[in-house]
Order: sequence, then structure tokens, then C-alpha cells
Amino acid sequence: MVISLNPPERLSPVKGIRLATAAAGLRYRDRDDLVLVEICEQAQTAALFTANRFCAAPVVIARRHLAAAQPRYLLINAGNANAGLGEPGLDDAQVTCAALANAGGCRETEVLPFSTGVIGERLAVEKITSHCSSLVGKLQEDAWLPAAQAIMTTDTVCKGQSRQLQLDGKAVTITGIAKGAGMIRPDMATMLAFVATDLEVGPEQAVRLVREATQQSFHCITVDGDTSTNDACVLMATARSGARFSELSTPAMQEFTRALNSLFLSLAQAIVRDGEGVTKYICIRIEQAHSEKTARDIAFTIAHSPLVKTSAFASDPNWGRIVAAAGRAPGAALDMDRLSLYINGLAVIENGQPAPGYTEAAGSQAMQGEELELRLALGSGKATAQIWTTDLSHDYVRINAEYRT
Amino acid sequence: MVISLNPPERLSPVKGIRLATAAAGLRYRDRDDLVLVEICEQAQTAALFTANRFCAAPVVIARRHLAAAQPRYLLINAGNANAGLGEPGLDDAQVTCAALANAGGCRETEVLPFSTGVIGERLAVEKITSHCSSLVGKLQEDAWLPAAQAIMTTDTVCKGQSRQLQLDGKAVTITGIAKGAGMIRPDMATMLAFVATDLEVGPEQAVRLVREATQQSFHCITVDGDTSTNDACVLMATARSGARFSELSTPAMQEFTRALNSLFLSLAQAIVRDGEGVTKYICIRIEQAHSEKTARDIAFTIAHSPLVKTSAFASDPNWGRIVAAAGRAPGAALDMDRLSLYINGLAVIENGQPAPGYTEAAGSQAMQGEELELRLALGSGKATAQIWTTDLSHDYVRINAEYRT
Repeated sequence: MVISLNPPERLSPVKGIRLATAAAGLRYRDRDDLVLVEICEQAQTAALFTANRFCAAPVVIARRHLAAAQPRYLLINAGNANAGLGEPGLDDAQVTCAALANAGGCRETEVLPFSTGVIGERLAVEKITSHCSSLVGKLQEDAWLPAAQAIMTTDTVCKGQSRQLQLDGKAVTITGIAKGAGMIRPDMATMLAFVATDLEVGPEQAVRLVREATQQSFHCITVDGDTSTNDACVLMATARSGARFSELSTPAMQEFTRALNSLFLSLAQAIVRDGEGVTKYICIRIEQAHSEKTARDIAFTIAHSPLVKTSAFASDPNWGRIVAAAGRAPGAALDMDRLSLYINGLAVIENGQPAPGYTEAAGSQAMQGEELELRLALGSGKATAQIWTTDLSHDYVRINAEYRT
Repeated sequence: MVISLNPPERLSPVKGIRLATAAAGLRYRDRDDLVLVEICEQAQTAALFTANRFCAAPVVIARRHLAAAQPRYLLINAGNANAGLGEPGLDDAQVTCAALANAGGCRETEVLPFSTGVIGERLAVEKITSHCSSLVGKLQEDAWLPAAQAIMTTDTVCKGQSRQLQLDGKAVTITGIAKGAGMIRPDMATMLAFVATDLEVGPEQAVRLVREATQQSFHCITVDGDTSTNDACVLMATARSGARFSELSTPAMQEFTRALNSLFLSLAQAIVRDGEGVTKYICIRIEQAHSEKTARDIAFTIAHSPLVKTSAFASDPNWGRIVAAAGRAPGAALDMDRLSLYINGLAVIENGQPAPGYTEAAGSQAMQGEELELRLALGSGKATAQIWTTDLSHDYVRINAEYRT
């Protein structure tokens, strides 16, 4: 099931970025599973990678290469995560980079590898290397949509977004694609996102923009709390629009940042809407916290509570579970007598007690829709946080229990 | 389903403790749901309560009364948690204590209230107060088993343990009962444990003993990570055996501590064996960690991973999920190249790579039983931790989704 999510009809090309896809047959039949992204010279690329210490070989190599050079190519495969294999996995990732560098006429460090899929199986390297030359030959600007489709693993809907802006009179495009349907999908690891703009952005600005955009998007979603071994998020700024971020007027700069953040957020929310076994798309909003960290900790504790998630699945206004999860969040200095809870706008708890006039029937009614907002006001400050998550359904258990059996 | 857990056939009386039960009809029909425990004078009682800031009214009152006086009575009800009700809930708990104090001829502060059950519904106070006199009249030493049955909520098996010791030639008894089948059961909150011994124990020793015993038992289990609003664990030392803890020989002191800890651990493990929807009883053992905290953090992160839990349900040796959960544990300084993983003794990963000769078939075989040991050696120190948990089954979702609908 998917909650109000359609695949993009079209994704706008970004000047300076060309893409190509191929069917390497790594895991899937009758579909493309290999993507090459070419980034023009003079572009600025920044990336964030998984915080999991058990990170996959391509993450290690991509980090190392990005520190050494500005990338000219991203080489992405779906179906095999190349994770949990030690030294041989690193060798495999490097062999694919070398083959692509040879075909593309660049240095090996100018290629970043990305993998998503099964953990613990060796990568069929030759299935990738044998496609490198033909991928380079097929590169074209208008191929974001097939790329979005080729990076899918167990996603049921492909995910992409474009924005067209006029910044101080100049046309600027942002286009991004993402994959992911759980933080980890069965053995199928990973969230990946690739976002490009033709705006010119300096190196420090690129890092700051990708960090800020990720902080309010991919860092605000959770399906099952399991950070994957392969998560990566890449921002490419090609400088081909003629507009330069640092020279924009303040309103144009704000417009670009807003558009970039909104695109990141849409991609992140698309991952939740397509989450494993999802039947409810849930926004958890914490208000009046004494710090943003507290607000986020409480929001994630609620989002990860199996009891909250199963009651959402049942459309059960089980507020005791929500408040109990808030009460055990790390470091939360909660005054339970000031706490109020609203479910899709309905006052359920006010100042620590059932709200006047609240009835179970009204609560049940508020829980019926596919989209839920759980809003918790703590009465202890001014900080807020907002995150998105799924419920915990029979299908979640089925998908994750039956995957390999 | 329950994993290898039978109800106790008999529980030994503890000199100085008398118990009585009654059917107050708070939630259940045709069963007792109210327990009175009388503690003799000169006894020493220590207790630990939930760390959840959203703690129930009886927890607030019990903490307050315990700080003011040594308790003479524990008044325990099942079926209603008296939680989430603000000031009226506190009043209700106090009214029941006052009624019991009146019937038992003691001060109100000498009564500790305990409740377990539905959150957010007012306690039917008169159903409790009307039984106080008859409960006092029915008190007897040999009533631990009916008490263990009367505190059950959605437990499927009643939980109790006794130990008979000879300490320096004197007979000493320890008997304890517990309830719980999830950290929180649907709305049914809580783990409760009441343990008594006729050994004489000083006030500071009592606190230390209950802390240490709890640390290696109830603090080492998790079903769904949801600390309840009503958790409480009480140790009563009646001093009626003629033996005094502080005067025991070193071997006898060690024997008592071992017996107490083992009784606590058995009760804690019984809660997991009767966990919601359990089909696998899982011990997670972390070895060679650089600190016990790291070891515990990693163990709990693995235990709470929905992906690890669902693969255990499927008897799937999905080691990537276990290692990925370890890799995201808070503050873990993991060197993935030194990590080894054993499933029921079978080497799955050694030094960060699939173990030589490991096959999926052997892994599947190792996962088949109802009891699993996941042992992770980190290769970075000498600290260990061991915790117990359940899998995540269709029944867990069904139980928790369908409870109120």
C-alpha cells in the first residue's frame, strides 16, 4: 500500500548533468538496475553518508574519493548493497570505479560508487564493468525518470521531484530522485538521494545546503528506526544556469533555499508514504519544548514505539501509549500536568488530563484517515520538531519476515 | 504462545508476610484482581519504580509514602492502572490507602498502592475500599500463589519463584511474584514484582540488594522497549528467620545474593517467555566490549530492531540486520573488522566477514529452535552484557492492534 503518492510524470533536466541506465541483471530481471550520472567540470558536489559504523564498501570508497577530488561520475547499482564483506567488498567497489574511470576518461577518485540491495553477497563486478563503456555512450540530459526507476529496490513507486525557479531573472532548475521504503528494507539496504541544480554554489555553501536540507527532511523520517549501512544523499551544483548562489539577492537566496528544502522534504516524505507495510502516514509534531533536541527525541521515541504504531494501524486513539512513549524519551524534562495532545486537531489531553468533552468515539473518528497528525504541546518552552513515520501493520511483519524464507 | 514457562506449583510462605486476595470486579469477571500484602513490624522494605516521567498515580503515592514510613501493607489491583488522570487519580489512590489504613489499624503512609491495567480510566474506588476489611480478615502466610494469579492482566501464565537456603545453619526463604507480558501491554500497563525474604536486612542493604538484583534482571529484559507508567519492584525483608544479612559469613552472604539475583532473573525471564506474541525467546550476549554501557546499548539496539525481531520470527539468519543494528547503537566505538557473530553457537561472522564455511542452510538450522542466543564479540575490550527479548510476530501486531477495537 502507498499513501497518496504518485510517480513523477516528468523530471526536468539540469544543465551539466547527464544520465544513463542499463540492465546489469544484478538481482532483477527485465528492468534497469545500473545508473551512471555524469557531472560537468566546474560543478560542486557535496554528500552526506550513513552514520552507521557498519557502513558498506561503496560508502567507504565514496567518502575517500570525495575527499580527494570533485566527482565527475556517480555509479549506482540496485540489488546488491556490497555490505558486510570486509576487504573484498572494498576491492569490488574500487574495480567498478576503475572500469568507469577508464571508460569515461577520468581518474578513479573522480568516480563515486553507490550500492543498494542485499547485504553480505559479493557484487557481480563483471556485470557492472561490462556496461561501463555503453553507459558512457548513452548519457543524456533528459534521463532522470529512468534513473529514478533504476535505483528502486523494493520501493513500489519511483520517487523524483523538480522545481523551476526564476532567481533574479535567471532560470534555475533543481531536480532530485530518491529510493527507500524502510530505513533498511529486508536485506535491501538503503535510502539514496541524488539532487542536482544548475545554480553555481561554492564548496562550503554546498556542504551547508545539503546538511540543512537533509536535517529537515531525511533526518526527520523513520519507518523502523533502522539506519541503513548504505544511506547517502548527494547534492550536485553544476553552475550552468549563469546564476551564482553567493551573488543572489536575499529574497532569491531564500527562495532557492526554500525550494531546495521543500524538494528534499518531498523526497523524504515520499519514502515514508511508500514505507514498508504502511497504512497510515503519520506526522508527529512536538511543540512548546524547551529545546529542539528534546522535541526531536520525544518525536522519535513516539515514532519508534511499537505500541503507538500498532494502535495507529488499528485506528485506535490510544493516547496512553503516545503519552507513555513521550514520558520515557531520553532526557525529556516533562511536566505531565502541562502536556496536551491533539489527534488530527482533536483535543484529547489538555494539561495532563483527558480534555473536557473528549470521547472515545470522537477519538476513533479522528484516527480513521490515512494521514494522521499527532501534535503534542509540552508547555515548557518554544522549540518545535516535526517528523514523519508509518504505522506497524501485519504487512510490515509479513514483508520483513518472509523476505528470504 | 509461551516459551517453556509453567506456572509455579507452589510458592513457599515467608515468615512475617501474609497475603489475601479478592474479586473486586475492576475489569475481570470470575477471578480475583485485588491483593493485600501485610508486612510485619521491624521489616525492611525497599522499592524501585518506573523511570517513566509519565508515572501513574499509585507510583507517585507509593514513592511518597515509602519516603515517610516503612510500609505495613501493599494494596495491589489489576485491571486499572490509575494513570493519566492528574489530580483526581492521586486522590483516588489516596482514598484506597486511607480505607486500608483504617481497616488495618495503621497510618495512611504505611500503605503503598500499586495498580496495573488500563490507562486513562478513573479507578472504581469503592470497589476497592469495600473489600479492605474483609481482606485484612483473610490474611494468611500461604497465599502467594493466589496473589500471583490475582495480579495478572494479559499474562497467560502466572509467575512466581521460591528459594530455600541454609545460611550458616539457619533456614532462609525467598519468594517472589511478578506480572508483565510486555513492558506495556496494550493499555494494560506494567511490570510489577514483589519479593520477600525472612532474612534480616538493613535499610541501606535492602536498597542495594534490590538495585543490584533489578539491574541484572528486570533491567535486562525488553519486549517492545516501552517502559510502562506503573513499573514497580519491591523487596521486603522481614527479619523473622533469625539470620541477619550483615552477620552472615562471606560464603553465606554470597549464597543469599546469588539466590536473590537468580530469583529476580527467573521472574524477569518469565515475563519475556510470556511476552506478547512471542515465538522466540532470545538471549542477546555482547562480549569484548570496551564498557558495560556500550555492551548494553548495543544489546538493546539489537533487541529493539524491528528488522532483527521479524527475521527471528521467520527463523531467518539475517545477520546483516543484526550487525547493522549494532553499527547504529549509540556511542558504540565499533571496529567492524574485529566483530564476530554467533547464532546458537554457530560462527556466522568472524572478524567482520562471513565465517569460513558458513552457509545459509547452517544458519537457518541454527535459527529453528524456540530459544536463540545471539552472541556478538566486539574484539575491543573485556566488558559483557546479556539481555533477553522476544521476536516480533503477527500475533504481536494482532494483540496490540486489536486490543481495544
